[in-house]
Amino acid sequence: MKTAILNIGTELLMGMTLNTNSEYLSKKLNEYGFSVLYHSVVGDNSERITEEIARLLEKNDLIVITGGLGPTQDDISKEVVADYFNLKMILNEEIKEKLIKRFEKYGRKITENNFRQAYFPKGSIILNNEYGTAPGCIVKEKDKIAVLLPGPPRELIPMFENYALKHIVSKKKITSKFIKLFGIGESSVEDKIYDLVINQTDPTIATYVNKSGVTIRVTTQGSSEEENLKKLSHTVSLIKKRLGEYIFTTEGEELIEVVVKKLLEKNLTISFAESCTGGLMAKMITDFSGVSKSFITSLVTYSNDSKIKELNVDKYTLNEYGAVSEEVALEMVDGLYNKYRTDICVSVTGIAGPTGATEEKPVGLVYIGIRFKNNIIIHKKNFRGDRERIRRSTAMFTFNEIRKFL
Amino acid sequence: MKTAILNIGTELLMGMTLNTNSEYLSKKLNEYGFSVLYHSVVGDNSERITEEIARLLEKNDLIVITGGLGPTQDDISKEVVADYFNLKMILNEEIKEKLIKRFEKYGRKITENNFRQAYFPKGSIILNNEYGTAPGCIVKEKDKIAVLLPGPPRELIPMFENYALKHIVSKKKITSKFIKLFGIGESSVEDKIYDLVINQTDPTIATYVNKSGVTIRVTTQGSSEEENLKKLSHTVSLIKKRLGEYIFTTEGEELIEVVVKKLLEKNLTISFAESCTGGLMAKMITDFSGVSKSFITSLVTYSNDSKIKELNVDKYTLNEYGAVSEEVALEMVDGLYNKYRTDICVSVTGIAGPTGATEEKPVGLVYIGIRFKNNIIIHKKNFRGDRERIRRSTAMFTFNEIRKFL
Repeated sequence: MKTAILNIGTELLMGMTLNTNSEYLSKKLNEYGFSVLYHSVVGDNSERITEEIARLLEKNDLIVITGGLGPTQDDISKEVVADYFNLKMILNEEIKEKLIKRFEKYGRKITENNFRQAYFPKGSIILNNEYGTAPGCIVKEKDKIAVLLPGPPRELIPMFENYALKHIVSKKKITSKFIKLFGIGESSVEDKIYDLVINQTDPTIATYVNKSGVTIRVTTQGSSEEENLKKLSHTVSLIKKRLGEYIFTTEGEELIEVVVKKLLEKNLTISFAESCTGGLMAKMITDFSGVSKSFITSLVTYSNDSKIKELNVDKYTLNEYGAVSEEVALEMVDGLYNKYRTDICVSVTGIAGPTGATEEKPVGLVYIGIRFKNNIIIHKKNFRGDRERIRRSTAMFTFNEIRKFL
Repeated sequence: MKTAILNIGTELLMGMTLNTNSEYLSKKLNEYGFSVLYHSVVGDNSERITEEIARLLEKNDLIVITGGLGPTQDDISKEVVADYFNLKMILNEEIKEKLIKRFEKYGRKITENNFRQAYFPKGSIILNNEYGTAPGCIVKEKDKIAVLLPGPPRELIPMFENYALKHIVSKKKITSKFIKLFGIGESSVEDKIYDLVINQTDPTIATYVNKSGVTIRVTTQGSSEEENLKKLSHTVSLIKKRLGEYIFTTEGEELIEVVVKKLLEKNLTISFAESCTGGLMAKMITDFSGVSKSFITSLVTYSNDSKIKELNVDKYTLNEYGAVSEEVALEMVDGLYNKYRTDICVSVTGIAGPTGATEEKPVGLVYIGIRFKNNIIIHKKNFRGDRERIRRSTAMFTFNEIRKFL
């Protein structure tokens, strides 16, 4: 089904708001088998809104419109869609009552304008808004579908998932596996599964990249989840045979999520001594609630003083080899272990830049010490990119190394 | 100048990549006085790329295209623009040489395909790519301008700012002041400066919100920066009179940037003891290179064990009042001070959720201890939202309190 997403909002064109709605809707729609071919954004301008809705409805079978459902004169999405299909706008008494009650509840006075939110194109399916005043709606006319949703993500997401989706997806069950890889580029992945990709019919195979690495999505449709999973497992195992060493999940989880789950499962404790990552690794692991059983502490020893005080790093070692050295990484991880005796101890010291480089020690040089069951490995890495990228690459590399031990 | 932004990339339509380019370009273009009227995204499909470029060039004076400059057969942005204006594609020998050298440097073999990156529509201005192989270009024809940029943000941003902008902005100098506020909502800001906003002619005033708070942009055009600054200073001081208590900068810096600058300027040291923020505050302050003179350490004492070991928090206090309590926040900041004696010591303990709440202690309850010059203040706050938002609000609130001391 050819699909377009139209976001209405001047704040998007001003660059004041990041367009997360189009990303969210694209991901969901693709998961359910829609082919998203267009994203478009226009401001609160009636001429351009009218023009865009018409253009995108002509070229597509489905259009998802966000924004323009509010009470002001600028909010005209429903009216424009009604005009396009030659439908009257009809007052829905139930929604009108709800609006009145909602305003009473918050002690606010309702104005005539607000009732615009209770009018819908004739015959539309009305979509409940649990987190705001403006309901959405779906109009199905002449083999086309228009889905109208509010702009704020916290209203849009529950409305789309809880009310809109079931009216637009086909009866067939769609199932996907998300195979995620670390430490290999997209083109190398494509090389290794090229024949599978070009010969795909069912399941379909697609690869894509984002910040955290390459993902291979394998998707099929059928009458039941069970049947679909059977179909998928064959393809997944083919891919695993070729790329197994890089794969950290077939269930779409984040790398760190996998690490956290395994730590909790195996009842292992972990602690960090972070210099150049400056708390980033602790922040990333504590993004997950419930990790406190495994994650004991991170000592962000940014200064030499704190490396000595917290980790018992030798002053002589710091002077002789410098804070960014194999020797200091080793003493850091040793010091951490002596203090906390966690099952896994990790130390990180490096030059994240842009300042701090010397002739022998370039920006991006990082030493990572990992202690696991009396084994200590010190990794020396040269990461590329700016400060943010080097810090992130360091953290991701380290979490992947930890995952390998688990 | 009517302006459109066209992003080419199937990964955007798949929802795999968040479209930060359109946000970034919109912000920049608006700053320089362009009226951005359209955002559009299409995939790597030659028919739709051709159609969109033609449509947007017809409706606008300026089109900024991202993506489609690479070496593959899918990358056709330059060819389509050349076709639209009836221009030949010309080989640039200098760029060809550069490509060969770059490949030699990294020990990779250059294929014929790669030379496609050295062809440009006749008469175009070539834009240097410091962070990738594909140069961009600007085509000016028939009162229209097309700017072609690479897709990856780390290539696009420096190319746009260092090379492209100067070829498209008007001769008049545009100057803006960015007044940033913390602790006040957008509608309250608008209420307080409503008369200024509706009576604006020159300078213009616009307010907008993002994750880190409300920004008021004041902009003017004139023959020199000096003259502009004079015009702006009057408006800025009017706004300061009304909203001064919330303003932390008129220079557009981030809140934490302001804190870091002041710490370095005043030669003050700072350390953190983080529980619920789990390293986030350390991560945020070390996002800035050069902060190591002020930022000494963060002890991410996520477990009770580490609170006792690192900060000498009393076991009895933990049992009696719980880890999330005024008493523990106080002992944490005391323990930190006794260990490091930094000028500013900060402790944070709270419930970031979604788990961990009790009847008396809801998700969002956070205690923040700040010690500055022998004064200790413990803040009790109830933040709203999900885990990420609570952690972020805690960090931002704390950095703002630190700023007030400076």
